[in-house]
Amino acid sequence: MARVVVVGGDAAGMTAAAALRRRLPREHEVVVLERGEWTSYSACGIPYWVAGEVGDAEDLVARSPAEHLEHGIDLRMGVEAVALDVDARTVTTDTGEHIAYDALVLAMGAEPVRPRLPGVDGAGILGVQTLGDGQRVIDALEDKPEHVVVVGSGYIGLEMAEAFVIRGIATAVVERSPLPLSMLETPLSQKVATAMRGRGIELRTETEVSSFELDAEGHVRGVRTSGSGGEDVLPADLVVLGLGVRARSALASAAGLPTGVKGGIVTDVRQRVAGVDGVWAAGDCVETRDRTTGLPVHLPLGTHANKQGMVVADDVAATLLGEPPRLTFPGVVQTAITKFCALEISRTGLGEQQARDAGHDPVVVSIETSDRAGYMPDAGALTVLMVADRATRRLLGVQVVGTENAGLRVDAAATAITAEMTVDDVVMLDLAYAPPFASVWSPIQVAARAAVRALNA
Amino acid sequence: MARVVVVGGDAAGMTAAAALRRRLPREHEVVVLERGEWTSYSACGIPYWVAGEVGDAEDLVARSPAEHLEHGIDLRMGVEAVALDVDARTVTTDTGEHIAYDALVLAMGAEPVRPRLPGVDGAGILGVQTLGDGQRVIDALEDKPEHVVVVGSGYIGLEMAEAFVIRGIATAVVERSPLPLSMLETPLSQKVATAMRGRGIELRTETEVSSFELDAEGHVRGVRTSGSGGEDVLPADLVVLGLGVRARSALASAAGLPTGVKGGIVTDVRQRVAGVDGVWAAGDCVETRDRTTGLPVHLPLGTHANKQGMVVADDVAATLLGEPPRLTFPGVVQTAITKFCALEISRTGLGEQQARDAGHDPVVVSIETSDRAGYMPDAGALTVLMVADRATRRLLGVQVVGTENAGLRVDAAATAITAEMTVDDVVMLDLAYAPPFASVWSPIQVAARAAVRALNA
Repeated sequence: MARVVVVGGDAAGMTAAAALRRRLPREHEVVVLERGEWTSYSACGIPYWVAGEVGDAEDLVARSPAEHLEHGIDLRMGVEAVALDVDARTVTTDTGEHIAYDALVLAMGAEPVRPRLPGVDGAGILGVQTLGDGQRVIDALEDKPEHVVVVGSGYIGLEMAEAFVIRGIATAVVERSPLPLSMLETPLSQKVATAMRGRGIELRTETEVSSFELDAEGHVRGVRTSGSGGEDVLPADLVVLGLGVRARSALASAAGLPTGVKGGIVTDVRQRVAGVDGVWAAGDCVETRDRTTGLPVHLPLGTHANKQGMVVADDVAATLLGEPPRLTFPGVVQTAITKFCALEISRTGLGEQQARDAGHDPVVVSIETSDRAGYMPDAGALTVLMVADRATRRLLGVQVVGTENAGLRVDAAATAITAEMTVDDVVMLDLAYAPPFASVWSPIQVAARAAVRALNA
Repeated sequence: MARVVVVGGDAAGMTAAAALRRRLPREHEVVVLERGEWTSYSACGIPYWVAGEVGDAEDLVARSPAEHLEHGIDLRMGVEAVALDVDARTVTTDTGEHIAYDALVLAMGAEPVRPRLPGVDGAGILGVQTLGDGQRVIDALEDKPEHVVVVGSGYIGLEMAEAFVIRGIATAVVERSPLPLSMLETPLSQKVATAMRGRGIELRTETEVSSFELDAEGHVRGVRTSGSGGEDVLPADLVVLGLGVRARSALASAAGLPTGVKGGIVTDVRQRVAGVDGVWAAGDCVETRDRTTGLPVHLPLGTHANKQGMVVADDVAATLLGEPPRLTFPGVVQTAITKFCALEISRTGLGEQQARDAGHDPVVVSIETSDRAGYMPDAGALTVLMVADRATRRLLGVQVVGTENAGLRVDAAATAITAEMTVDDVVMLDLAYAPPFASVWSPIQVAARAAVRALNA
């Protein structure tokens, strides 16, 4: 009999644990340590919960602790792993217990970046990484905040800003870069900025937070900023930090395990932690690899966490049972999607600078088209930006901003990038055409034709 | 100086002509013969015109005869090619003219199948293939028809039925097969049938038309049917024939040119007509090739016509100018999309029987999922059917029926089929994930995981 210990009970950890429980004979133990009070939840759903579109925290839970216990997983809630000994193969918990393992799965997730600024520990300054964080934002809404400031305008910042706009709360967004959503190229970020301002958001770009102003009770009342427009204080009863996340990997690095980009634990394609036997890692706490460049990246997304959890389960089971493993995680192409009110926003592959950094000579084109045949009523506008490699003509990246039916267009592009197609190949793809869905050329192909023209010029 | 003669002035012909006019020096002539009164129009838009969503015929015209003339194309409207001499390199027109060519482009399009049934030539029995046909349907609506019968329930039959439902006219659809949209697998066609009946359409399946009943003026008044329910007469003031199309290739076959599936002219990947020099063909009048099976298929769609027209222009210009050609048309993966009211319907690749016919041992799975994270409001249901090859695990086909954001999901599948991915590869694709757009597994991946389980069982 063997014991698998999983540290962390969200997407990656519970996917691995549940798959292992199904695959391993009953004499093997699957132990999960979860320091919080929730399991298998969708942190990505928090903005929609805050917006009031999702009823409560329970709705975001795919499988509760009770359900996992029922399925035979030895789930220990409220227990935190505080030390690992990978030679002795033990995990030490905050309750002082030493748990021996045959296989260890690290799935601690990520933690929001908290800037070390004066006042940052004041009340009403919240991150949004766990359901507990989400609950604190929901609770703060009870006090009827009049002014919310969102710090950072990445995906989470944008989605939280949308949630507060839907709630009818005056919302300001502070962003260090010249434009929001810096993972987009300039022409697309500009459209997002326009949409944000169009919905009444006070968007302060090229602006940094210098401190948080607290009242006598220690509650936030303002955000002091400095930027292109000089010094200012934005009123705030509630501040949400959307400055991105780092891998929660201190436990791993303290045990001598290798970490890389944004603290992500370094693994191979079977999610085995590099250089140590018997330890796997998955989800937001690992670094992964871009399939095009081969370079390490940190992309904390539930979809990767689920896939990696599946790979871990396959490899751990194969190891314990002496069977050949079947799965590998091949890496990512940096696909992401979000929306801001009616505007859909997505990207896949490399941006121009990323392509340059990876040694490509990128050709970049941007086109405007419509989401259906131009003569159809309510045709929506769509901007597609495409990055291609000049030497090989390979498709490197696609970014889309537009109304209905815009965002998911990147899925075909993500597939084409994975298949190492050229832009010429993309032009000849047999993509879906009918007047309510596209012109005779799909938006992705309109962009590919522009890329071909640019390459042939 | 050389002369290119193009026969047919719609998508394929005018795409080729316009591209040739741009590429060839002015001393070369580009002559187009168009027997009708329209050029470069979207026949696919006719149902939306009939529905009243598109204002008039002009809206469906991408480029008018006058615009083509302005661009230097020698466009001859109302002139029909009646004979070809591919040895002498001449085209004879219905005006008795013999036009010599250096390069001939055949782009005559397709013609609707008209069953040889008693009464079929009666007034009010219309096809919908050209803008002229569309205009006749629009004109017929002036007489306020109370009962419309649509014969056939392929894409065009379904779209026309939707148009009449939107117009508030009692609509019956007669279909020989047990279910509508026979290009879909049974579980999906059933959903379409349910949606049609739900919108009040009298759907008669396993039913054939035996004759059309005409009044004293020769106008249709009823459709006599025989089927599983016995003999019947459906009242009809207007009948639309949606029985599919055949290539309009009599001109070509009379000149000894090879034709194949549904009369489609046989070409190579540069759209050169097989076995004869100086003749190219493109669009609805040609047969093409399925990229997976290599088998010939006839798929009359504007998107293929445009691509093939582009390839023709490239190859004709290269031939006349003595340059190397750059483009080939690689074939299709049988992607198609349509909608019926709120229901989106799409397919790509092979159905089960097609896969079997091509020598595969197909594994077929069908899953139900939602178009966004399950906890999001207004989540819509989506059915995805997937066909995979047992031996190689290759993805062969995907079909989707569902509400919003459903149909275009096939684009990623079409790309994956083109790239010869396995269902295991599809599971690991980096497709877009955020709660408003998908669960952590995209619907295509939910189906791919089911296919993997079926293959591993």
